[in-house]
Amino acid sequence: MTSKIDILGEKIPVVILGATGTTGQQFVRRLDGHPWFEVVAVTAGDDVQGRSYGETVRWREPPPIPEQIASLPLRRPDQAAGARIAFSALDANGAGPVEEALARAGVVVVSHSGAHRLDPDVPLIIPEVNADHLALLERQRRERKWAGAIIANPSCSTTGLVLAVSPLHRAFGIERMVVTTMQAVSGAGSPGVSALDLMGNVIPLIPGEEEKIETETRRLLGQLQGAVVTEAAFAISAHAHRVPVLDGHLLAVSVGFRRRTTPDDALAVLEGARLTSDISALPSSPPRPVVVDPRPDRPQPRLDLDRERGMTAIVGRIRSCPVLDIRLVVATHNRVRGSAGGGILTAELLVARGLFR
Amino acid sequence: MTSKIDILGEKIPVVILGATGTTGQQFVRRLDGHPWFEVVAVTAGDDVQGRSYGETVRWREPPPIPEQIASLPLRRPDQAAGARIAFSALDANGAGPVEEALARAGVVVVSHSGAHRLDPDVPLIIPEVNADHLALLERQRRERKWAGAIIANPSCSTTGLVLAVSPLHRAFGIERMVVTTMQAVSGAGSPGVSALDLMGNVIPLIPGEEEKIETETRRLLGQLQGAVVTEAAFAISAHAHRVPVLDGHLLAVSVGFRRRTTPDDALAVLEGARLTSDISALPSSPPRPVVVDPRPDRPQPRLDLDRERGMTAIVGRIRSCPVLDIRLVVATHNRVRGSAGGGILTAELLVARGLFR
Amino acid sequence: MTSKIDILGEKIPVVILGATGTTGQQFVRRLDGHPWFEVVAVTAGDDVQGRSYGETVRWREPPPIPEQIASLPLRRPDQAAGARIAFSALDANGAGPVEEALARAGVVVVSHSGAHRLDPDVPLIIPEVNADHLALLERQRRERKWAGAIIANPSCSTTGLVLAVSPLHRAFGIERMVVTTMQAVSGAGSPGVSALDLMGNVIPLIPGEEEKIETETRRLLGQLQGAVVTEAAFAISAHAHRVPVLDGHLLAVSVGFRRRTTPDDALAVLEGARLTSDISALPSSPPRPVVVDPRPDRPQPRLDLDRERGMTAIVGRIRSCPVLDIRLVVATHNRVRGSAGGGILTAELLVARGLFR
Amino acid sequence: MTSKIDILGEKIPVVILGATGTTGQQFVRRLDGHPWFEVVAVTAGDDVQGRSYGETVRWREPPPIPEQIASLPLRRPDQAAGARIAFSALDANGAGPVEEALARAGVVVVSHSGAHRLDPDVPLIIPEVNADHLALLERQRRERKWAGAIIANPSCSTTGLVLAVSPLHRAFGIERMVVTTMQAVSGAGSPGVSALDLMGNVIPLIPGEEEKIETETRRLLGQLQGAVVTEAAFAISAHAHRVPVLDGHLLAVSVGFRRRTTPDDALAVLEGARLTSDISALPSSPPRPVVVDPRPDRPQPRLDLDRERGMTAIVGRIRSCPVLDIRLVVATHNRVRGSAGGGILTAELLVARGLFR
Repeated sequence: MTSKIDILGEKIPVVILGATGTTGQQFVRRLDGHPWFEVVAVTAGDDVQGRSYGETVRWREPPPIPEQIASLPLRRPDQAAGARIAFSALDANGAGPVEEALARAGVVVVSHSGAHRLDPDVPLIIPEVNADHLALLERQRRERKWAGAIIANPSCSTTGLVLAVSPLHRAFGIERMVVTTMQAVSGAGSPGVSALDLMGNVIPLIPGEEEKIETETRRLLGQLQGAVVTEAAFAISAHAHRVPVLDGHLLAVSVGFRRRTTPDDALAVLEGARLTSDISALPSSPPRPVVVDPRPDRPQPRLDLDRERGMTAIVGRIRSCPVLDIRLVVATHNRVRGSAGGGILTAELLVARGLFR
Repeated sequence: MTSKIDILGEKIPVVILGATGTTGQQFVRRLDGHPWFEVVAVTAGDDVQGRSYGETVRWREPPPIPEQIASLPLRRPDQAAGARIAFSALDANGAGPVEEALARAGVVVVSHSGAHRLDPDVPLIIPEVNADHLALLERQRRERKWAGAIIANPSCSTTGLVLAVSPLHRAFGIERMVVTTMQAVSGAGSPGVSALDLMGNVIPLIPGEEEKIETETRRLLGQLQGAVVTEAAFAISAHAHRVPVLDGHLLAVSVGFRRRTTPDDALAVLEGARLTSDISALPSSPPRPVVVDPRPDRPQPRLDLDRERGMTAIVGRIRSCPVLDIRLVVATHNRVRGSAGGGILTAELLVARGLFR
Repeated sequence: MTSKIDILGEKIPVVILGATGTTGQQFVRRLDGHPWFEVVAVTAGDDVQGRSYGETVRWREPPPIPEQIASLPLRRPDQAAGARIAFSALDANGAGPVEEALARAGVVVVSHSGAHRLDPDVPLIIPEVNADHLALLERQRRERKWAGAIIANPSCSTTGLVLAVSPLHRAFGIERMVVTTMQAVSGAGSPGVSALDLMGNVIPLIPGEEEKIETETRRLLGQLQGAVVTEAAFAISAHAHRVPVLDGHLLAVSVGFRRRTTPDDALAVLEGARLTSDISALPSSPPRPVVVDPRPDRPQPRLDLDRERGMTAIVGRIRSCPVLDIRLVVATHNRVRGSAGGGILTAELLVARGLFR
Repeated sequence: MTSKIDILGEKIPVVILGATGTTGQQFVRRLDGHPWFEVVAVTAGDDVQGRSYGETVRWREPPPIPEQIASLPLRRPDQAAGARIAFSALDANGAGPVEEALARAGVVVVSHSGAHRLDPDVPLIIPEVNADHLALLERQRRERKWAGAIIANPSCSTTGLVLAVSPLHRAFGIERMVVTTMQAVSGAGSPGVSALDLMGNVIPLIPGEEEKIETETRRLLGQLQGAVVTEAAFAISAHAHRVPVLDGHLLAVSVGFRRRTTPDDALAVLEGARLTSDISALPSSPPRPVVVDPRPDRPQPRLDLDRERGMTAIVGRIRSCPVLDIRLVVATHNRVRGSAGGGILTAELLVARGLFR
């Protein structure tokens, strides 16, 4: 599994941009002891430059803070410090120029910021779903003349949805889809939503989220034709809600296909879904892209999040839909697969594809 | 407003069946001081017969327990004690025979139990929506030979949905509808859902609920033809969830119409929705069947429940839907409009229609 | 009850300082329709000057916003606009100079800001407990030469504690007291605590709160001697916690007295506690200063908050303490009695004492 | 570390009594892959006899169910099936006779049921605190003539308290202690507390809990003299609360000592607390009995539970107390250290002491 690295002879140095935030902390924790990557730098806002990561971060992950990273001094966001990969956990605000500067300087930026997510020459990637879209990097290099590159990760709710419906799309061709999200508070970062607003309540608005889900889903399931990704042609309608759940997004999905599809058809396809061997060989790869839970009241965010180390979509309640073809429920770990876990898997794919040879 | 009662000369004696449960307590509280009805009896399980209501009930409503009712002795469910109306807050389990026995004995039973909700000769009523369905009572009387009658109230999530979409159905003709519910824990009664199961979680199953919503909605919006209600012909798909909210169901709705409808069309219809004068004259009637909230993040269950004393549907986020015509959000107070408040309004309608003259 | 006002002939004009915050909104709601006071002005931060209250406030109270107040333009904090009383819901930050300026200009400021709470010449008042401390106003006027005055309200957790233990202190003399608070999130204002921090959690720190409880309690139960309040001499230890409760502070109290006291002694005193007739004549006065609930699992914040319209302390579980004399539990509505409700009662006391004649 | 077992040559066969409940599941998960113990049998109620564990259990721990145990058939509680140790996760109800029958039959029962917790000849054990109390087993064997034995584990809230204060008691001698607990819902088992009761609320009663904390604490810190444990002589007062927290009990403690003690004294003792080498050699032993967290707002149940794999008490906010000597906050993982984790550690101690040689 570590053969790529054996070739390299040593770990690839990486930097975490925005390392003190909630997503940044996820990267710190998940890169600790990673077989291929070594965190050589962490960046944060100007006001804490030079202080050590361990003394500065308000650590929310399970303790302790990984020792080697705790002692690193915080750098400015544009200081790559010899890293070849930058994991960007920056806010959308201001992330764009920083990521571009690093890409220009030769760093490969795997970004959660959303800043370049819909640029036509930036691959938006879920490794199990559309690894072929990485071919956009050639166009990006040609047009932008960067020594490095920018690759984007989808938003956390999109990731779970697309992992779950991608095998169905390949088998039956999605025609229409209505998805209602019940999203965890950790998806809003820190401080995020006020307890006074959210406790015992549901907030039926996450600004920009419905548009993200609709656009990114069509992009991820779109076709690469030459140097262009053509969005998948189906209609998708998203209803986004914030619910008083700590971690884990739940999605209620009604989906109709070009070919009439029964729940049994869908179940067979989802249970038969397999990873290609190059994906399953990646260190962070889950064994399967989707897990189907047959229990009538599952998945539930709190109980099912950590299955397959939080890296898959858990699907349940596959049943017929009186309006479209089938209904199903999807749970996904927004802080793992929808965040650092997904980004690291993407970076591993880049290594496996020889981008750092 | 109290003219019907002036004619009667005195209040109508009523009994609350299952008065110690959460729904029963709602009836107790809301019938206290009611201008038309007087609670003369309360019933509960066999084990507490003869004890006073006040000493027995585990009171969950705002204190105090209405004094006159607190002193009533608990009776067996089939003891009407001179009441002309029975408000049934019984569990579905075993409610059927009790309600039938009372109807046979001349009592008009307004039932939340669900036991006869889908019987073809039992009117399922939301006064603002389908008061004309009360004509089924003639058939019921003819066929069942009861001196009294049974009238059913819809389930709590259906009530909010139908209040909100009924004006749209009348204006544009619903063709297809996908509704995702996020339902409060109080809808499950007591003890209901365990805190260990629900805290920080979403449970994507409420047994039987999706079928109820689908069937009752088509029934309520159906046409009375002679002595038969023909279900409305549209397709409806429900996804039901229990969320960690105390009171108030929230519904995310995508709906398509026979006539192409824009959000502005829908907004105009909902804002123009008015009650007929006979409904608005009822003591428990809200001023309007629907309230539209223009704020982008409303309605929210905890903040908007008590508007119009909890008796209307609050609608927000009317926007176009990429799959059907429009999307909207509905909030409704499950323990008021979806429960005792709705039942009492139905009983008031019966009085206004002269059923007790 | 409105005789004072009959003498005045008309309502007293009042201003609410910081009217858009959570405490300010409480004042708006509770002063709507008040028999003695009329809100003639509302103030807020510089950025919203001139806009109407209704358009600006993010209203969290039950709708609707009182109509007359909704139309008022927002003013700068130091603009009293003819008001004779200012209810200050300002943050501690910057409240001091504003309140002083108004007092100098002849306004009587009833303050929740904490800015002058411990000034030796500012009466810190709970009407049922230490109305005699108002005599400090003479000293204040003498020393500060203000045409108006400043009267302080205690913090929300102190208020409930002192209402509950004050009858016991008068009867038996408190010697030592350990109080552990479990405080609601609404006590932290808006946005206050993040949902990410508080959901499913307890935070064992509310900065400054333990000191406030300890100091204010001894002050409130202190003796007025001449123009000086001498703090009560007992030892008090507070442990403050933020818990995931929306409204209502719960306090677990162990208390020892100078005279050996049994739970029965304490129960008799608390059940016998009565208001003086001048206090009970105030429009916002609860019927009793303390309500004892005999049920073994009460009081509970969510269930017992609204008793006596939220204006009393609810006491339960009076039992012996193996370390001090007795243990008991106190619940109090932090957003009513601990906030605007308490402030308005204090202002009513000032009217009754003839301060505005 | 596995030398004891090397001597034995093979793992010790164990049975889990009440294996399908929440505590039972903890044992299943934590004994999976244990270096010394092998689960050879699981028991449950009569109605599920013969079915496999995996098919029967409503699994609440992180998936998957350990494979080897999932396939075991459920047995009746009194069927030890060759086990030498029984971990009892039975309810107090009916546990007594079952545990006695097994002890009589030669099994060593490590019990969480509470059935024999206060029997004078049953050792109540926290390995780090009072391993010497195991000497009671001689008396137990002498008096009861059992081939096996019963050893009791303290209740979950007591365990955290005693781990934290035991070093202080040894150093300074506790004289008086007031402890207020804020206990997680998982401590009440399943279904436990209703969401309707607990959401957004605090319940100031856990039946029997205050007495348990007071009695067990004095017992655990008591002196073994001959074959008798004499309870520690200090006064202790407990206030117990259920709060809307999933896992993790938080305790606010005021404690006074025979020798005047400052917060610095206490801090030094707690930071210096060490395990004896025989305890630290046990596979489940935490590195330290107590961890002191210097951050002003810690410990918090949700954030600090899993430190040292959930096996220690986390102490914070050590500060002076105006009534007793010091105040501090303790967090402990009720489902780990307060439950299966603690029981397994006790069993490991028994192995290390040669009980199974």
